[in-house]
Amino acid sequence: MTTHIDSGLLSPVRAGTPVEAAVQDGAWLQAMLDAEAALARAQARVGTLPGPAAEAITRAARAERFDVREIALAARETANPVVGLVAVLTRAVAADEPAAAEYVHRGSTSQDIFDTGAMLVARRALRIIRADLVRTAAALAELAVRHRDTVMAGRTLGLQAVPTTFGLKAAGWHRLVLDAERRIGHLVDGGLPVSLGGAAGTLAGYLEYARLDGAETADPGEHLDRLVAAFAAETGLARPVLPWHTLRTPMADLAAALTFTSGALGKIAVDVQSLTRTEVAEVAEPFVAGRGGSSAMPHKRNPVLATLIRSAALQVPALASALSQCMLSEDERSSGAWHAEWQLLRECLRLAGGAAHTAVDLTEGLEVRPEQMLANLELTGSQIVSERIVATLAPKLGKVVAKRLLGEASALARQTGRPLADVLAATPELADLITEKELGALCDPTTYTGTAGALVDRAVDA
Amino acid sequence: MTTHIDSGLLSPVRAGTPVEAAVQDGAWLQAMLDAEAALARAQARVGTLPGPAAEAITRAARAERFDVREIALAARETANPVVGLVAVLTRAVAADEPAAAEYVHRGSTSQDIFDTGAMLVARRALRIIRADLVRTAAALAELAVRHRDTVMAGRTLGLQAVPTTFGLKAAGWHRLVLDAERRIGHLVDGGLPVSLGGAAGTLAGYLEYARLDGAETADPGEHLDRLVAAFAAETGLARPVLPWHTLRTPMADLAAALTFTSGALGKIAVDVQSLTRTEVAEVAEPFVAGRGGSSAMPHKRNPVLATLIRSAALQVPALASALSQCMLSEDERSSGAWHAEWQLLRECLRLAGGAAHTAVDLTEGLEVRPEQMLANLELTGSQIVSERIVATLAPKLGKVVAKRLLGEASALARQTGRPLADVLAATPELADLITEKELGALCDPTTYTGTAGALVDRAVDA
Amino acid sequence: MTTHIDSGLLSPVRAGTPVEAAVQDGAWLQAMLDAEAALARAQARVGTLPGPAAEAITRAARAERFDVREIALAARETANPVVGLVAVLTRAVAADEPAAAEYVHRGSTSQDIFDTGAMLVARRALRIIRADLVRTAAALAELAVRHRDTVMAGRTLGLQAVPTTFGLKAAGWHRLVLDAERRIGHLVDGGLPVSLGGAAGTLAGYLEYARLDGAETADPGEHLDRLVAAFAAETGLARPVLPWHTLRTPMADLAAALTFTSGALGKIAVDVQSLTRTEVAEVAEPFVAGRGGSSAMPHKRNPVLATLIRSAALQVPALASALSQCMLSEDERSSGAWHAEWQLLRECLRLAGGAAHTAVDLTEGLEVRPEQMLANLELTGSQIVSERIVATLAPKLGKVVAKRLLGEASALARQTGRPLADVLAATPELADLITEKELGALCDPTTYTGTAGALVDRAVDA
Amino acid sequence: MTTHIDSGLLSPVRAGTPVEAAVQDGAWLQAMLDAEAALARAQARVGTLPGPAAEAITRAARAERFDVREIALAARETANPVVGLVAVLTRAVAADEPAAAEYVHRGSTSQDIFDTGAMLVARRALRIIRADLVRTAAALAELAVRHRDTVMAGRTLGLQAVPTTFGLKAAGWHRLVLDAERRIGHLVDGGLPVSLGGAAGTLAGYLEYARLDGAETADPGEHLDRLVAAFAAETGLARPVLPWHTLRTPMADLAAALTFTSGALGKIAVDVQSLTRTEVAEVAEPFVAGRGGSSAMPHKRNPVLATLIRSAALQVPALASALSQCMLSEDERSSGAWHAEWQLLRECLRLAGGAAHTAVDLTEGLEVRPEQMLANLELTGSQIVSERIVATLAPKLGKVVAKRLLGEASALARQTGRPLADVLAATPELADLITEKELGALCDPTTYTGTAGALVDRAVDA
Repeated sequence: MTTHIDSGLLSPVRAGTPVEAAVQDGAWLQAMLDAEAALARAQARVGTLPGPAAEAITRAARAERFDVREIALAARETANPVVGLVAVLTRAVAADEPAAAEYVHRGSTSQDIFDTGAMLVARRALRIIRADLVRTAAALAELAVRHRDTVMAGRTLGLQAVPTTFGLKAAGWHRLVLDAERRIGHLVDGGLPVSLGGAAGTLAGYLEYARLDGAETADPGEHLDRLVAAFAAETGLARPVLPWHTLRTPMADLAAALTFTSGALGKIAVDVQSLTRTEVAEVAEPFVAGRGGSSAMPHKRNPVLATLIRSAALQVPALASALSQCMLSEDERSSGAWHAEWQLLRECLRLAGGAAHTAVDLTEGLEVRPEQMLANLELTGSQIVSERIVATLAPKLGKVVAKRLLGEASALARQTGRPLADVLAATPELADLITEKELGALCDPTTYTGTAGALVDRAVDA
Repeated sequence: MTTHIDSGLLSPVRAGTPVEAAVQDGAWLQAMLDAEAALARAQARVGTLPGPAAEAITRAARAERFDVREIALAARETANPVVGLVAVLTRAVAADEPAAAEYVHRGSTSQDIFDTGAMLVARRALRIIRADLVRTAAALAELAVRHRDTVMAGRTLGLQAVPTTFGLKAAGWHRLVLDAERRIGHLVDGGLPVSLGGAAGTLAGYLEYARLDGAETADPGEHLDRLVAAFAAETGLARPVLPWHTLRTPMADLAAALTFTSGALGKIAVDVQSLTRTEVAEVAEPFVAGRGGSSAMPHKRNPVLATLIRSAALQVPALASALSQCMLSEDERSSGAWHAEWQLLRECLRLAGGAAHTAVDLTEGLEVRPEQMLANLELTGSQIVSERIVATLAPKLGKVVAKRLLGEASALARQTGRPLADVLAATPELADLITEKELGALCDPTTYTGTAGALVDRAVDA
Repeated sequence: MTTHIDSGLLSPVRAGTPVEAAVQDGAWLQAMLDAEAALARAQARVGTLPGPAAEAITRAARAERFDVREIALAARETANPVVGLVAVLTRAVAADEPAAAEYVHRGSTSQDIFDTGAMLVARRALRIIRADLVRTAAALAELAVRHRDTVMAGRTLGLQAVPTTFGLKAAGWHRLVLDAERRIGHLVDGGLPVSLGGAAGTLAGYLEYARLDGAETADPGEHLDRLVAAFAAETGLARPVLPWHTLRTPMADLAAALTFTSGALGKIAVDVQSLTRTEVAEVAEPFVAGRGGSSAMPHKRNPVLATLIRSAALQVPALASALSQCMLSEDERSSGAWHAEWQLLRECLRLAGGAAHTAVDLTEGLEVRPEQMLANLELTGSQIVSERIVATLAPKLGKVVAKRLLGEASALARQTGRPLADVLAATPELADLITEKELGALCDPTTYTGTAGALVDRAVDA
Repeated sequence: MTTHIDSGLLSPVRAGTPVEAAVQDGAWLQAMLDAEAALARAQARVGTLPGPAAEAITRAARAERFDVREIALAARETANPVVGLVAVLTRAVAADEPAAAEYVHRGSTSQDIFDTGAMLVARRALRIIRADLVRTAAALAELAVRHRDTVMAGRTLGLQAVPTTFGLKAAGWHRLVLDAERRIGHLVDGGLPVSLGGAAGTLAGYLEYARLDGAETADPGEHLDRLVAAFAAETGLARPVLPWHTLRTPMADLAAALTFTSGALGKIAVDVQSLTRTEVAEVAEPFVAGRGGSSAMPHKRNPVLATLIRSAALQVPALASALSQCMLSEDERSSGAWHAEWQLLRECLRLAGGAAHTAVDLTEGLEVRPEQMLANLELTGSQIVSERIVATLAPKLGKVVAKRLLGEASALARQTGRPLADVLAATPELADLITEKELGALCDPTTYTGTAGALVDRAVDA
């Protein structure tokens, strides 16, 4: 039964990806066990727990020794999985090393273990995501450079506007992915702290056991500093200024970074979809035999990677908003806001991570079709450069008149299907102002890409 | 590995509940198989598919025959799990009955199968939820009747305002749960339709195979009506007016009903939490040995049921908003909006369902403490009935003066800790207006419950 | 200063629309005054307030007599605008009719007035929305009928899939708009209740004044029923079973109905955008001189109506989710959840209403281009009917072989740009199975629209 | 009519605050005009526009010269307010200096002006917010220091858990506000860029006019760099690497920072509400005559400031999620996602800003009641230190036995109302393990605050 609760069936964007494995229940369980073991070792480091006990706890703290479903079910009785986890871990330690069992979870509280475990899970997941973002950004930089001068239609509000280049588009995606990578990296590098507060954030339990265990810690502050430092060292996580049981900065930061990441990748996805449409056909997803198939239509090669990425990007902002809302955690531990965070965080991590993993495939293999871009550029018969023609005529006619003239000529071109250049050539007001040759040059969309090339250079070098 | 992707560890509100089982991957897989089998039988009913083939497909369509993880992983190639499902189902049918294999998924499309399956899953889950809401409502009605006249402080903006009764509070919860039950019931009873549209919503594939199979269906409309009716009959789902591949009324309605349900239960939870606080202590969650324990503090009996319910209620509205947002499904099938719905729908179902299941326990066993309610009523030394005293004095002093006097007297009472009656008795302006006895009667909070009793009667009878 | 807080500059979808006027601060102020006046008249009806006082209050309760900004600023001191409103209304009544001033807001509470006012505002807004939905649905029905047999490409995941008709697309929009209209209508017709509870939902204040005023109301229940009925009659709103200060069914229902409405209209908008793209050009927004202009590009005729509608549809679900979240209103009045609802409700009303108003223009004037639809249908050289060819060949070759053959032929057709019919004609496996003539007939997309026509008939008649 | 669209009536948290003024329509209009003027001056700087024209444009670009409502209404025709703004600005410039009119909006596009204006508005608003956060943090630091050793009950899941200090609570609020301030500051200091891309992000229009105006800019890249630098210098905004028309990093960052800010302040609000409850009464909002009044109950002094802050904190995450969702902006300008951002951004700014402004009042004047904290600490008869007693007994009895004993003793204490110390003194198992005096010392909650004092020191110094 348990095996089928979630095998990824409803979330193909992350099914089978490394990040899915990194955040699954077994990984979460292991991370909580790692937190318990690290805590014991930290207490041993500061001299308030016997070294062998810490070793015994570390040895016992292996997820494979426990039944995660049983712990999950037990969590209904206490509203969190740590109480049950401590019970089974204590039994496991006792089985190996009876004396050490007394030292399990010593002075601690469920939230210290859960939140530290969550930070460990998040860090592992973020590292995977970061690596995928780095690969994606590199692929995009390459696309940008390769297509620095590949002209295509720029589109605004769904309509061809003025020319741009595919290089500039890819460069924009590249920067956005780098922006995501920076936000993820910022968290990985010091933004994920251990949780260490004890029952209500004063560390009183830790201190009390330290006193009982005869630690020479007359000064609570000194003990605090040493214990936090030791716990941080054992986990590799950051040292918080204060216990953060109800000061949810790390969760809010994760919500923000993952929203950003899924949004950045989602932007690429919607662009790829726009360019993949049958009538546009300027790019295609990488061809892989069997991929993109339809259950009914053999001719289809669906843009499945972009679809998967977009499916994630449509979910994460809402999930993350609920996660951020949990900053409203009352008192020293919330009765509900803390508990609401867990699955939301996991879902954000694996959706953003699944999207990042998918984006590597999408961007490394994206098929670009410059000839189709060129063909589409011709569709409007040069209306796409109407802005340039206005600019050229404005000094002679005034901006308002020039714009009106071009508006009328464009409408006529649309209605009659004639090229804009022809319509303009037949416009009396322009007779003496511009030669046919000049008009021809002006109407060439491939020469109206502004600073696109320079922007690519700057974006890729920046 | 698969076994631990999600065992409920991060979502105790639904871990082990019936609704969790009803929406897990295995159940979803079975529902899609049920959809395939029902479609085959429906086609057999209308004469376009051999009866034995439909029987063979129905026999083969057992989830336990397939590896759901394998199907989930394959879904990455096609962005949905149905393509892979059809492949393995076809093989399974072929193994049993080679001739029947040709008839699997005949004329169909992934979305018809997935969405029909989703409706089957939703219906099963909603029925569970509905039953739990009915039980919860009954428990609350009983509480309301039993405590019809149990006086307690009404609280607004966190402060004692005027008296109310616990019966009225319970009656309010009762009505809210009934409101949820009605919305769920509305969906169960006819709001969940089969999905039948074929590749792009015209049923062309179904019709084509019908033609090829020699069905006497000169009239497409007649075939349409018969096939939809047969599919609805085979599944027990409703008949839609149109294929709804991108007309997402059923999903939006589910989102709304589940948001409502979690909100209704969440209201009860926050009230229980408010009344459970150590300093208030007017109710307690049902006592169950071992429940509500803390990993650190042996004296605690945490309100875990309310906590779990609230944890769900903090998540569902955001998840459901993303689900509703998917109404923006472009064209005949969205490249992403459809795919984003799946996990969101499941999560909404099991969170709302977990909350409903938990609410049964909470409300059937809630411990109510009338004596503590009475004690708390005395805390403000009758300030809680200042409204009544103003009402009594207003005809004599004018409303404005009366309100000012009571405001000053209340402030003095707060500062000095004296009962309001004493302060008022010593107020010169009131000397001739009211006797001490009258004042005493006015200051008795237990006689100022307005229409609370009548409201309970109406709420429970309504 | 005040004049410019919001003139619609940032929300063109509703700027200047009737619904914007119906929900603006002045309208809200008037609605609260209407609630005060109706309450007084209701109390007069049941004999606990002098008729002339009720008349005087009604006369004074005119928004134009008060400074709404002053009331808004005063609301910071009490967290709601009613306390200040009562003060200025009392002064205004006193100025006209001193004796009547005592009867303003008699026995009442801020939330009764605010929420009743909110329901009055919502009802007015919903009626406007409903009328616009009815007009939109009618326009869409006409489009559906007119284009019942206008063949076009059906598109899934952005790619041409199989043919459909524009009539079926319009019929789908029509049904979705009717679904919205039904949900709105359900609220207008009895879903919006008066709020009448007094300080903490017991109506004690109302009852107390009734007693003092000598009303013969020995039975609180009878007084309750009469007063609620009278208030409902005076406002035209529904009678709630219970005071709903913290039982937020009406707000959650509004959130759901408005989410649905904006989603339904948003679906139309994204479809129009898809079809308006330069490369697709199958529809165009109604031509209005000057509309759709760009600040830079004279040739553009932007789909501004669809853009405005989509801009609303992207906002409402999130706003509505926060509104629904406010169901978690603790105690007898929430310290924050109630207050969070107000602007959210207004924004949902005017965004959905603005979208509905815009949709009338969009759908009544939509330009449909059957010839372009036909041209686009030819783009894939009959790949769009590959499903049909498979169906035809399957009985001869088996489904799997047929699908593989068509997949290969389609790929070849794509790569070489040859029509699919030619490729198939040259496929040896098919040589004896199908004649060129049969192939030609099969490859005609205009004859493969399945039950589209019948669906249109049913959707429009249903 | 216009004057009353929004005077703050439905959003008292920001009514009349500086941030409301900074983001109102008039301010937004001025900011767009500032963008137009700055653009002209920037073009003059780089030599492509006559200095006097830039001066004339700057002179004309005064919001008070234009009718913002008229511009808002005109925006319905073009889906954004800039097209209309350019028209009226051009007329105004022409009236003053006809030759300069040609240079208005030269080479530009609506989005450059709108987005640059939005960044100017955001910067002004963020500066106000930042200053209020700094003041709030300072007030909290002072509270933390003053109450470093003020003992109170720590509460988890609504129940008294172990003692803490009010100083530690205030220190936590302080850190959270500093975290918000840092995130806001990060944006103010370089996170808000100018928007400069022209029609589709290539700056082609700017370049074309530059060429026509004879600027010696053979190298597009050089012109790009100079123009962007000049525009940034004229506005004081940052220089983006690329045009960000559909790379919405700044908007996503604003959404994140404002969500964080409202969440941080909301945390303080829910804590203040928890502590203000009648039965807890450990803090009170600053007393201001007339504030906190109820329309019905003269004795009430509602926690209105916390209520207002919480009302904002319940809205912002959802609004901000919709804003972040707009990262999915297709092509070179989205048909809807861009337009959806505007009102969402404003609402986030003024809600977070209103909350910050309100938080200054709340925290600078918060009334703290140490004596009531002490009284509440006694409520559980020392159960609040059960953790310590377990710690003390664990070495003698083993942790499991000690915890069980204390659990039983606590239950007995609760049921009988006897102090825990008495119950424990009468527990046979403990007879020889601990003296009554030791027990008395252990049971004193005021000596069990762990490292609270040291944490305060670190938090305030950090």
